[in-house]
Amino acid sequence: MSTDPDCIFCKIIAGQIPCFKLWEDQLTLSFMDINPGNDGHALVIPKAHAQNLFDVPDTALQAVASTVKRVATAINTTLAPDGLSLMQANGPGAAQSVQHFHVHILPRVHGDNLTFNGLYSPGNLEAIGALAERIKTNL
Amino acid sequence: MSTDPDCIFCKIIAGQIPCFKLWEDQLTLSFMDINPGNDGHALVIPKAHAQNLFDVPDTALQAVASTVKRVATAINTTLAPDGLSLMQANGPGAAQSVQHFHVHILPRVHGDNLTFNGLYSPGNLEAIGALAERIKTNL
Repeated sequence: MSTDPDCIFCKIIAGQIPCFKLWEDQLTLSFMDINPGNDGHALVIPKAHAQNLFDVPDTALQAVASTVKRVATAINTTLAPDGLSLMQANGPGAAQSVQHFHVHILPRVHGDNLTFNGLYSPGNLEAIGALAERIKTNL
Repeated sequence: MSTDPDCIFCKIIAGQIPCFKLWEDQLTLSFMDINPGNDGHALVIPKAHAQNLFDVPDTALQAVASTVKRVATAINTTLAPDGLSLMQANGPGAAQSVQHFHVHILPRVHGDNLTFNGLYSPGNLEAIGALAERIKTNL
């Protein structure tokens, strides 16, 4: 499986950097975003390194899609938000922050005014970890 | 295949309402958004009616993911935008406008300040149709 030694997500997959893991299977990993746009903001990535949508193989992309649905459903059940948005960015004009394909799962709150290029602030790690445990009970 | 007689996307699938079609296969349809956030804004939908991410079966979801990649790649080749965002909305808090699961493919321009809840203006239909023809040459 291809990895990039300089990629922060590849380091998370390898266990070299910790994460609040929600789900893991053969091809995908899901974990909490520690700079959340809203409570419950999570990411889904393929384990094999691919820079963006154009580079990710169909098999990995389809596995990511299934994990997105699985995790988003658990987040929706746990938080019952006003809505839920998926977002995925490719390239500088889309403000792609990490060069490893990733899908954002963003619970929505009426009036949150989230933008596509949102640079969110670091969240409270203890609260994020506790929320991850609650989400996992619905997975 | 399930359809909703009151759903505008089901009517597009059935050919009762016209669209600028980019791609069609057994499970999915892709066409131009006529209220584009930027030039090249396109949608991908499953043919079987499903309200949102939580309702769409995995088989249809995975087919949508593959069509999204296929069409987004053609749009990227055609327009060479500054970036490309995918967006998918569920529920009122996410400003879901049509109650049939759909993925937005949004070419990005530096400084466009697109928002998740963007209500975009009607585009020039002749220009959208001409752009669809250009994109199709790269599909």
